[in-house]
Amino acid sequence: MTSEESGKILQFLPFSSVISSSFWHKLTQMKIDVYALSDEPVDITGYYTNQSASSRLPACLNVDYSSFENHHASVVGRNGILCQGLLQNTNTFEAFKDINKQAAINKCGEQIWNDILSGAALLNPSLLTRFLLLTFADLKKYQFYYWFAFPTLVFPSKIILDEEPKELDKVLTKDELHQLQQAYDQYKATCGQSAFLVEKNPDLGFKCHPLKELANLKNTTWVGFCDPSSLPTNPGWPLRNLLALIAYHHKERLAGLSVLCWRDEVRDGQRRIGSSLLIEIKDVVYPTENETNPKCLGWEKNERGKLGARMVNLSNSMDPERLANSAVDLNLKLMKWRLLPELNLDIVQNTKCLLLGAGTLGCYVARTLMAWGVRHITFIDNGRVSYSNPVRQSLYTFKDCINGGQPKAESAANCLREIFPGMISLGIDLRIPMPGHYVTDAEEIEKDVQLLADAINEHDVVFLLTDTRESRWLPSMLSAYLGKLVINAALGFDTYLVMRHGQREPWNPGQVQSEKSKGVMRGALVGRQLGCYFCNDVVAPGDSTKDRTLDQQCTVTRPGISLIASGLAVELMVSVLQHPEGGNASAEISTAAMTTVQQHQQEPDNKEISGSPLGVVPHSIRGFLHRHQQVLPATEAFYNCTACSPLVIKRYAEEGYAFLSEVFNNPDCLEQVSGLADLHKDIASIEDWDYPEESEESND
Amino acid sequence: MTSEESGKILQFLPFSSVISSSFWHKLTQMKIDVYALSDEPVDITGYYTNQSASSRLPACLNVDYSSFENHHASVVGRNGILCQGLLQNTNTFEAFKDINKQAAINKCGEQIWNDILSGAALLNPSLLTRFLLLTFADLKKYQFYYWFAFPTLVFPSKIILDEEPKELDKVLTKDELHQLQQAYDQYKATCGQSAFLVEKNPDLGFKCHPLKELANLKNTTWVGFCDPSSLPTNPGWPLRNLLALIAYHHKERLAGLSVLCWRDEVRDGQRRIGSSLLIEIKDVVYPTENETNPKCLGWEKNERGKLGARMVNLSNSMDPERLANSAVDLNLKLMKWRLLPELNLDIVQNTKCLLLGAGTLGCYVARTLMAWGVRHITFIDNGRVSYSNPVRQSLYTFKDCINGGQPKAESAANCLREIFPGMISLGIDLRIPMPGHYVTDAEEIEKDVQLLADAINEHDVVFLLTDTRESRWLPSMLSAYLGKLVINAALGFDTYLVMRHGQREPWNPGQVQSEKSKGVMRGALVGRQLGCYFCNDVVAPGDSTKDRTLDQQCTVTRPGISLIASGLAVELMVSVLQHPEGGNASAEISTAAMTTVQQHQQEPDNKEISGSPLGVVPHSIRGFLHRHQQVLPATEAFYNCTACSPLVIKRYAEEGYAFLSEVFNNPDCLEQVSGLADLHKDIASIEDWDYPEESEESND
Repeated sequence: MTSEESGKILQFLPFSSVISSSFWHKLTQMKIDVYALSDEPVDITGYYTNQSASSRLPACLNVDYSSFENHHASVVGRNGILCQGLLQNTNTFEAFKDINKQAAINKCGEQIWNDILSGAALLNPSLLTRFLLLTFADLKKYQFYYWFAFPTLVFPSKIILDEEPKELDKVLTKDELHQLQQAYDQYKATCGQSAFLVEKNPDLGFKCHPLKELANLKNTTWVGFCDPSSLPTNPGWPLRNLLALIAYHHKERLAGLSVLCWRDEVRDGQRRIGSSLLIEIKDVVYPTENETNPKCLGWEKNERGKLGARMVNLSNSMDPERLANSAVDLNLKLMKWRLLPELNLDIVQNTKCLLLGAGTLGCYVARTLMAWGVRHITFIDNGRVSYSNPVRQSLYTFKDCINGGQPKAESAANCLREIFPGMISLGIDLRIPMPGHYVTDAEEIEKDVQLLADAINEHDVVFLLTDTRESRWLPSMLSAYLGKLVINAALGFDTYLVMRHGQREPWNPGQVQSEKSKGVMRGALVGRQLGCYFCNDVVAPGDSTKDRTLDQQCTVTRPGISLIASGLAVELMVSVLQHPEGGNASAEISTAAMTTVQQHQQEPDNKEISGSPLGVVPHSIRGFLHRHQQVLPATEAFYNCTACSPLVIKRYAEEGYAFLSEVFNNPDCLEQVSGLADLHKDIASIEDWDYPEESEESND
Repeated sequence: MTSEESGKILQFLPFSSVISSSFWHKLTQMKIDVYALSDEPVDITGYYTNQSASSRLPACLNVDYSSFENHHASVVGRNGILCQGLLQNTNTFEAFKDINKQAAINKCGEQIWNDILSGAALLNPSLLTRFLLLTFADLKKYQFYYWFAFPTLVFPSKIILDEEPKELDKVLTKDELHQLQQAYDQYKATCGQSAFLVEKNPDLGFKCHPLKELANLKNTTWVGFCDPSSLPTNPGWPLRNLLALIAYHHKERLAGLSVLCWRDEVRDGQRRIGSSLLIEIKDVVYPTENETNPKCLGWEKNERGKLGARMVNLSNSMDPERLANSAVDLNLKLMKWRLLPELNLDIVQNTKCLLLGAGTLGCYVARTLMAWGVRHITFIDNGRVSYSNPVRQSLYTFKDCINGGQPKAESAANCLREIFPGMISLGIDLRIPMPGHYVTDAEEIEKDVQLLADAINEHDVVFLLTDTRESRWLPSMLSAYLGKLVINAALGFDTYLVMRHGQREPWNPGQVQSEKSKGVMRGALVGRQLGCYFCNDVVAPGDSTKDRTLDQQCTVTRPGISLIASGLAVELMVSVLQHPEGGNASAEISTAAMTTVQQHQQEPDNKEISGSPLGVVPHSIRGFLHRHQQVLPATEAFYNCTACSPLVIKRYAEEGYAFLSEVFNNPDCLEQVSGLADLHKDIASIEDWDYPEESEESND
């Protein structure tokens, strides 16, 4: 008769995994921001406690957001026992399924076995309680597939008992319990390991020692370990590898060994260690295979009691707005995984954009900005939604047109929040004062100017998307004065212009002299040397809306043009923002650039001057749908520009609204201030001269 | 004492204009479709009646939708009196205001005077009752500014009466009234003019004669005219020019002339002419100025009693859906006024579009189609709206994402109708069966195939906008089989491909032999020779979704790209539709086209091969945002193409679903059917040969 037949085989309570949802949120973040495409296993930590003996809870191994940190806060806070884990998060569900589970757990078993062989586990028994966590995070759906393993070596293969484990308060007196507790506390304070030795000295009572002392302690009665189990008959999983360690190093002492399954809870304000178990090992059985590499097992069963993965769907339990927020972020961050790791999404997300015009361009620009993660968008428009708008202006629907139409700026801002509740969007119903549009109510207009100036000042990028040339003058001038980045888009019937204005430093009175430059620059133009929308003009903007026929009143365009121009306008902004020089980024031009504007001939394919991870950062993009042609002209700032020249800005800086009022009522004054009038005189006086044709400039 | 002092001066009741809203709708249509930019005066007609004597209504001159027709239906229907009018509709409000009103009415007065001088008005007295209508139609706001003139010659300048006009039933007996009525009816039946003579023959009673008989009828007692006035004391406006006619031709008979103001109504089922007035002219005063060109007046006063224009705002009274319809139409038709008169908008509007995929591309393509006036859009998609969608997919909002998300196809279709109620939009929740996606439920899949085939058959243009290559195979093949135009758009991170598939005739079994051509064509490729999305492939499409990482599962793209590609896709479709050859239009390419695909070198700037009013109609457009480059490669249909080759189509035509089922489960069979497998063998056998590099083909 074998001892097996005469005794009882000891059964161990396996760990049950407990995953805090904070773990998944943190994993999501790590996957997006840190791991990206990598599916290499990473170290994480988990913990268990031995503090719930009377709760009859399963033996929980917990992971949470701290599992990704070196210092696992939950372990310290809850007096838990730290466990080393290995997380392997696959990129696809296929890979998750395809991982060789036996190989994975064997590898971990080998590691434990090696730590036993080397004696490392004797010095640090926490090396014995490892876990594996295999995951696939479907971040699009907030579904997480996972499978835990708690590897345990089948060595010995069986532990045989003579009698049932006994609860400690049935073995020790109250005094003895108290004494043991003190001995343990003393040990824990100095050593802190989850496995220990308990020496019972007839004279001195109990004393605890580190595990490594086993060979030296002949009087040792018990081997103790912090036991996650709360069953009155069974110890928890960690004992298995602990017994393997003892079996390897002290095989001779295993039969007859007493094991203390240390359970240490506080119940009703009272510390209780009496639920700890004492187990007397009668005999052990070893596997028949070679001992040099014991078998390893320990994959957790799922909720159906099968060896298999589990899935948790967090989408239903999460706040929908937060879900939307993460989903939008995720989509953007995916760009960084493989394609553009150097992309700085925060710069884009934190950019405040002011859209002047909430029409076809304004709507599509806002949508493209949102797709790029921009959260702060303000519209300025003074129109109302009309019946022809919704099919072209993508933030409005039929219901916005009824009864005279909703105000556009406000409707557009509301729509952005309906699309994505995280938007900080505002609509300002404001008519932009314009040169040549005679001012009747000066006080009102002065207020409007202030409102516009404040709005520009509070934003980082100003988009000019209005439908007249002259409505772009004031914001162009104010943006130059305030040193803001301006992105300008304008449509023809089947042509488009998308450009950035040369971005200057905010105005300071000293700059007039230093910036005067009239000649063509050599080499690339940096951002602050680039022109604005008005730099090609040799006449001041005036009232162009009077006397326009119906087809001139609205922008009659091929519908596809506005999508193309809006897409390019936002991509140009993002390219500028991603450039290390920002608005001062050098302008790149195409070889096929127009010949009627001043050009700086460069071949981008030959000479890489772009510093933006998104590619070339042109000054302007002109497209011609009729021929599917696109050119990238760059033009220098014009010293006599009516909008951005230091002469004009200086006048505004000095006189403020008084100057503007003059401009609104008499745009010719701009030609005086900017020096254009003198230029006209000069040109008139040389009119009859014979000068070469190529010096002509075409007025845009 | 002058006769003026001894008598009463006759006052005439001016016309009051009455404009049916149908007039404005018709004017809107004429302006948009016919007049366009022209503001030349055009002939219209109006009418008045003499049938409301007892109603005490003003003397109405009516215009309505029939005013633009030669045959004025309302005149005939209501027994009205036709008036010739001249409509001048200006292009701008400024022009409306600036028209010289006096000059305009003088011109019309001259015309009347000339008709008097020439005697034409004697033969046709309706030449005397002319009107002018000056309008400005603000078609964007449905506001119509207008001003009527009823030109009347101040000749004589005064008509003096001895006594008040008398009502006819106070002058004639009942019998005489009856007799007069019969005489008038007889006259009207044969002559029908609004002015006439009434001869009272002591024997024969009353007889009516045309006006031209005045000289011959010595016994003439009365000059009659159909009188729009219902006042018991005053005749209507038409009498003034009638008296001018008589004053010129029969000046001697004016003093003492009896005028019959003919009022002819049916009241309570009884015909009544007794309210007609009889006026005895005592004397006349002529203007002191020269008689050769009498003064003309007659501009209508507005509702405030001032000489000035009126405005009617129809937007509030119109059905909002109809307003939206017209507004959308207007915006498109404005293109035809100046820019593209040859544009055929009906072709576009009547095109039924099937969009496969309701994601980023699907949403923007649908919006661009709507802006072009397309009314019939169907989506096929089997996804649900997820939280990351709305910021990129422009037909969804946050609310569509909650609780697992709405089905995309249906949501997108609903949104189109919210944007524009005139849309005929449908969403079909269908997963497109794909090669290599193993079929588990064959019956279900067969139904899906049939549903897809039916949908393609019922539409004119199929857009391929899905996110995998293999989901495009079945619709590509079916569209080739059914001879539909296919527009394909696909995105990379910062690249895009927009192409049309070569459009064939619907399949007929005879075409296999005739279309076999392997060599490079010389000259431009016409539409049916062009390749499809799969023509560059040398392997069959298979399951590409298995094993894709998160950033490969969704299309990670620069957000601007999808707007650009969607805009181009729709513009390409419209360019094809506008081309006289339609889908068979020759493909044009750019000079900078890619060098890795088979090309047909042509220089569009030198050789105009486009027949589309919208410009070049390329086969494909490939764009690279990184460099802002765009090329227009054209590639020939590949005889061994897995999607569009006659070999594959033939198999489908012969075997139907049995063939497809084989393809879904084993895409390699496509390589057998298409002959690709043999090609592979051929290539393998010549692998070691030394062949020139340029014959290599790069797999797209």
